[in-house]
Amino acid sequence: MASVENDLRADDVAAASLPSRVAADGEGIGTDELQLAARNHGMPLEAMRYDVTPLGLHYLLTHYDIPAADPATWELSVGGLVDRPVTLSMDDIRSRPQVTVAVTLECAGNGRARLLPRPVSQPWLNEAVGTMRWTGTPLGPVLREAGLSDHAVDAVDVVFTGADHGVERGVEQDYARGLPLREAMRDEVLLAYEANGVPLPPQHGFPLRLVVPGWYGMAHVKWLRSVEVVDAPFEGYQQTAYALRQEAGQPGTALTRIDPRALLIPPGFPDFMSRTRFLSTGTHVLQGRAWSGWGPVERVEVSTDDGATWAPAELEPAGEPWAWCRWTFPWHLSEPGRYVVSARAGDATGRTQPDQQPWNRGGFANTSPQRVEVVVSA
Amino acid sequence: MASVENDLRADDVAAASLPSRVAADGEGIGTDELQLAARNHGMPLEAMRYDVTPLGLHYLLTHYDIPAADPATWELSVGGLVDRPVTLSMDDIRSRPQVTVAVTLECAGNGRARLLPRPVSQPWLNEAVGTMRWTGTPLGPVLREAGLSDHAVDAVDVVFTGADHGVERGVEQDYARGLPLREAMRDEVLLAYEANGVPLPPQHGFPLRLVVPGWYGMAHVKWLRSVEVVDAPFEGYQQTAYALRQEAGQPGTALTRIDPRALLIPPGFPDFMSRTRFLSTGTHVLQGRAWSGWGPVERVEVSTDDGATWAPAELEPAGEPWAWCRWTFPWHLSEPGRYVVSARAGDATGRTQPDQQPWNRGGFANTSPQRVEVVVSA
Repeated sequence: MASVENDLRADDVAAASLPSRVAADGEGIGTDELQLAARNHGMPLEAMRYDVTPLGLHYLLTHYDIPAADPATWELSVGGLVDRPVTLSMDDIRSRPQVTVAVTLECAGNGRARLLPRPVSQPWLNEAVGTMRWTGTPLGPVLREAGLSDHAVDAVDVVFTGADHGVERGVEQDYARGLPLREAMRDEVLLAYEANGVPLPPQHGFPLRLVVPGWYGMAHVKWLRSVEVVDAPFEGYQQTAYALRQEAGQPGTALTRIDPRALLIPPGFPDFMSRTRFLSTGTHVLQGRAWSGWGPVERVEVSTDDGATWAPAELEPAGEPWAWCRWTFPWHLSEPGRYVVSARAGDATGRTQPDQQPWNRGGFANTSPQRVEVVVSA
Repeated sequence: MASVENDLRADDVAAASLPSRVAADGEGIGTDELQLAARNHGMPLEAMRYDVTPLGLHYLLTHYDIPAADPATWELSVGGLVDRPVTLSMDDIRSRPQVTVAVTLECAGNGRARLLPRPVSQPWLNEAVGTMRWTGTPLGPVLREAGLSDHAVDAVDVVFTGADHGVERGVEQDYARGLPLREAMRDEVLLAYEANGVPLPPQHGFPLRLVVPGWYGMAHVKWLRSVEVVDAPFEGYQQTAYALRQEAGQPGTALTRIDPRALLIPPGFPDFMSRTRFLSTGTHVLQGRAWSGWGPVERVEVSTDDGATWAPAELEPAGEPWAWCRWTFPWHLSEPGRYVVSARAGDATGRTQPDQQPWNRGGFANTSPQRVEVVVSA
C-alpha cells in the first residue's frame, strides 16, 4: 500500500496537516471542508422511503482514499492474544457460515455543521445515515477457532485495521479502531463482504469490512486487513479522535453506540437552492425513520411549529432489531403560511434528542432535531 | 406527482426561491450551498483507476427530489410533431433493440466553486464526472416509428421532460430540456434503463432516462416521462439556465457538449483535512483520465511545477468513442519539497483547457486545470 510509511519528515507533516480547529464566528464553510463534502456524501432524505437504502444513496465517509483491492490476494490476519494466529483468504471467509443483517449506520459527526461554533471537519448537516443489508460471517467464531478462549481473561480490546492509509491532524496511520472484547464477540458482529446482496462496492470496504450493529460508523472498519486481540485498551488515533470533549487534549468520552434520532422526509417539493419545501393545504402524511443503537425506539414526536409543541407520531413495529423503523404523522393543514417541521425520537433506555444540544469540540452526536422549512399555499 | 402544481402563490415562491447570485468577496460556502453538497456528490478522484465507474461513485446532481417510481406503471409518452403519438411501458421499451454505450458524463457546473467571484449554486470543485455503461434502446427509431418523417421539415427540437418537480429561481417546473432534432436522432442517443448492467439506481433516473453521449449532464434527462417533437427552439427554464453569460438576463451561449478536461489521480496518500498528498522521492507513475465531448482527445500534458512548464503524458488508445481515455506520466522525483501537479487535455477539434479561465455568471465549463498539492519527502 503506502510506499513511504514512516519516512515522512515531521516538519513536512506538520506543515500540511494542521491541528483540529473550530470555525470563527460567522466563518463560512472553507475549501478544505468543501473538498470533503464534494467527495463524501449524505443520503438524500427522500431515500428514507426505502426500507433498505439503494446502493449509492447510503451515506459515505472515507477518511483517506478508497484503496485499490484485489479480492484474489486479499488476506485477513487474525492474531494477537490467540493460540493459533491465522490468515484468511476471501475464499476462506466466504466458505464460513453466512449471515445477513439489516443495519442502520450513522456517522458520529452527523449534525456537526449545525453546531455553533462549528468544528472544522467533514461538514455534515443531517444526512449521514443509511440502512443496508450486510452479508458476511460472524467474527466471534473466527476468534474462538483461533484459540481466544485461553486468553480471554487478559483480552481487553480487539483492534481492527484497514488498508486505508493517510495522515490526520499530523498523525500518519492506517485507519484502525479498537472494540471491547465483549462487543466484538456479539453474534451480530460480522466480517461482511456483501451489501444489499452484491459484493461490497469499493467505497464501502471491498472486499471486506467490519459491521458492528448499533455503533456509529467509525467502528465499522472498511478494507479490513487485520484483527488483533490485545491486553490493553487501544489508544490509536481514531480511538481518541472520536470522543466528546470540550477542549483539545482532554481525554473525553469515547463515542460508541448511536444516539436516538428521528428524521422526516421533507414533504412536498423543494426549491433547488434553499431546499425550502412547497405544499398545499389539506392533509399530508409526514413520514420518516427513527433509530437508536442503545435500544428499541419507543416514541417519535413531530412538531409543525418549530419545536414549540410536539405530538406523537405513529410508529410502525420494528422489523429488524438493528435497522431504523418507519413512522407516520398525518398533518392537517388548513392555514397557508410558513411552517417549520421537526421530528424527535426516544428509545427504551430513556435516551432522547435534546432541544438544546450540548456542544463538543469534535462535533459529534449532535442530535438536535432537524428543521424543515415549508411554505404552504391555499 | 406534484399535487399543488400551479397553485403556488407568486409571493410565496418569491420569498423562498431567490434569484441567482454571486458570492461576495471572501464569502465562504453558505448553508444553502452546503445542503446541496451534502446531498449530491462528486466522484472521488482515485476512482479514475476504474475504466467504468462503480455504482455509487459516479457524480450525482439532483435538482429537486429523487422521485418515487413504479416501473410496472411507468409510461413514456412520445408526441408532438409525429403522426402516431404513442405511450410506451417499460416492457415496451425493454422489448426493443438493446444497445450498451460507455459514456463519460460531466456536470456543466464542474469547477464552479473555484471561480472568483463564486456563482452560488451546487459548489463543485473538480469531481463532477464519471463513466458508466448505459444500456437502453436508441431513441431515433422510436421517433421514426411514431411518424416523425412527415414532420421532419418543421421539427426543430425534441423536448424531454422528467418526473422531478420543483422550484428554481422562482420558476415551478418539471425538469425539462430540449435537444436539436439532429442530435436527438444520433444513433447513440438512448432511452436507458440500465447502468453498469443493473437497473438504473433511483438517483440515476430509475426506471428510464435519456443518455446523450458527448453532452454535459443536464441534457441526460432522468426519470423520463415525455418526449415531444416541437417546431420551435425550446425555451424552458433549464434551457436558458445552462448558458454562458456575464450578467443575469443576457441571452448567453447555450451549453451543449463537454469541453476537454484531464484530471489526475492524486498520487501518494492524503492528509484527511487539507487533502494535501504525501509522497517519497523516486519515480511515480502519475495517471488519470481525459475526455472531450467534441472529438477525440489528442494530447494530455502534465505540469509538476504549478503550471510553469508542461510535458506530454502518454495517452492510451481510446477504447470507446464516448468514454474517457487513460493517460500516464512517469514522474522522476529527486528533490524533496512541495509541488503542485496539474494535467490538461486538448482534443482533435483544437479545443484546450485555458490557463486563465474566462468567468461566467452560472459557473459553467470551468476547465482551468486541477491543482494537486504534494509534499515530497526524501
